[in-house]
Amino acid sequence: MNEFELIERYFNWVSYHSVDLSVGDDCAIIDTNSNTQIVTSVDTLIEGVHFSQNTSAADIAYKALAVNLSDLAAMGATPKYFTLALTLPELNEPWLSEFSESLKHLAEEYQIDLIGGDTTKGALSITINIIGEVETGKALLRSGAQVNDLIYVSNTIGDAAYAWQQIDQGNKPSDFYLNRLNRPKPNVELAQQLVGVANACIDISDGLEQDLSHILSRSKVGANIDIEAIPLSDEVATYIDTTQDWCVALAGGDDYELCFSVSKEKINKVTLIEKELGITLTNIGVVTKSQGLKIKGLDKICQSYQHF
Amino acid sequence: MNEFELIERYFNWVSYHSVDLSVGDDCAIIDTNSNTQIVTSVDTLIEGVHFSQNTSAADIAYKALAVNLSDLAAMGATPKYFTLALTLPELNEPWLSEFSESLKHLAEEYQIDLIGGDTTKGALSITINIIGEVETGKALLRSGAQVNDLIYVSNTIGDAAYAWQQIDQGNKPSDFYLNRLNRPKPNVELAQQLVGVANACIDISDGLEQDLSHILSRSKVGANIDIEAIPLSDEVATYIDTTQDWCVALAGGDDYELCFSVSKEKINKVTLIEKELGITLTNIGVVTKSQGLKIKGLDKICQSYQHF
Repeated sequence: MNEFELIERYFNWVSYHSVDLSVGDDCAIIDTNSNTQIVTSVDTLIEGVHFSQNTSAADIAYKALAVNLSDLAAMGATPKYFTLALTLPELNEPWLSEFSESLKHLAEEYQIDLIGGDTTKGALSITINIIGEVETGKALLRSGAQVNDLIYVSNTIGDAAYAWQQIDQGNKPSDFYLNRLNRPKPNVELAQQLVGVANACIDISDGLEQDLSHILSRSKVGANIDIEAIPLSDEVATYIDTTQDWCVALAGGDDYELCFSVSKEKINKVTLIEKELGITLTNIGVVTKSQGLKIKGLDKICQSYQHF
Repeated sequence: MNEFELIERYFNWVSYHSVDLSVGDDCAIIDTNSNTQIVTSVDTLIEGVHFSQNTSAADIAYKALAVNLSDLAAMGATPKYFTLALTLPELNEPWLSEFSESLKHLAEEYQIDLIGGDTTKGALSITINIIGEVETGKALLRSGAQVNDLIYVSNTIGDAAYAWQQIDQGNKPSDFYLNRLNRPKPNVELAQQLVGVANACIDISDGLEQDLSHILSRSKVGANIDIEAIPLSDEVATYIDTTQDWCVALAGGDDYELCFSVSKEKINKVTLIEKELGITLTNIGVVTKSQGLKIKGLDKICQSYQHF
């Protein structure tokens, strides 16, 4: 099978948006609109780093797209298109079929188009470049946090890191934790509701401590957070209670929950969003004038995810 | 060094265009214009497939960006932005420094912005997603070839494949051929001049035979080309004369020259472009009604580059 046939068979889907041509020419062409800005981000998933050798093709495809959707979500943008650079050690058709089905399923859920790609032979690696739109000037940035803003996180933190740890120790995590690791739900809808409400926003991919610190440094502010306020799922709470290993929540990353800051005047809107979406948004601290992140209750330094 | 420091040190450059924020937030934001369309493409380079283990970081960076510029060129688009997904086996600072300098140098030449990226640990792999603009409706497509159009290629064909072959056989190609392999010049200016002149265009990355066939199938036409008309550099001409190995020109790829079709009424414009840019544009055949590609003078089947 040549690349062209591979694309035709596995990656030639329908279009939701105005794409003049997608797979089948040198480039894809996208119509633009003067009221919107294009928002784009890229993420690579590597075997052994972002997923284990036992991870299914379906889970890999899901996560590769989900983490990119999460980056767009953190900007309050609407995802529209993506390109896929897929490097495979061999042409494994059952694997490709499972991969493309899963990718297509998630793409359909968010109504986004696969508009281009490249397939190469090599160590398994998936790079997705996602492209979305946001109303001009409305994007949620890391740089907008204001002193006295309240800091929130969505849902529970540390579940994916806890699942990784279980797998590392030879245990099989329960479905809930496996899903948190392999099928993180991108908070696209939440982020869109936060446009005009949150002053700053980031998705927690590398760990709460590290990612919140990005907001703080970009906004030139500091923060105090209370470790006891961090929302935890039951097993993670029990695990931390037993081991005092708070780093699983502070430095774990990979949950792709959102961390955002909101002025006190708008916290009623946060409550409304919480109810409307049926999710939990938890205030874990406050933005301060003095720079740096102070974590009340933590007596050690956690090692957040490092790319090298 | 964490990823943030790595980006700051090696990949935080100036902006040429209206990019609200680039490296430093979840996504980059691009202003759009209602008179233009966004054009995007992605290509991955893998060690052992697209470059040898001895290739310098500078050459790898150059080629990774050049092949993407070439894809945009094939559409007649103006390159503006790119994202970089870089997978490295280790954090090698001299390598990174050389890589980023070379990438920056080429980016400056075309005045394009690096607007996002991801760095991961793994087998060496470089994925660049390039984004450009084209006036709405003006892109050069593969699908526009008309019966009786003349088929042209730019410069000479087969040089990169010949260089690969020399390296494979343990010979050191001369600088001209090494540059044709490692430093292909993207035909951005040529393609922009071809807007409104050419009916169809593609860049020859996988081999003339295969890439021209993409034009033919997308345009639902055929072609007759004359093997003796294919423009060859001196050493390649001598090599083919000796070996009759025409496949080096027909199936080699990797030169990133353009193949395009032009109606007979417009061939004077091709001559003008040739003079203005000081390049050679050679008519190698004609578009026919009967489908398929007929190659006069070829008595064997070449194996074009296959991704698997």
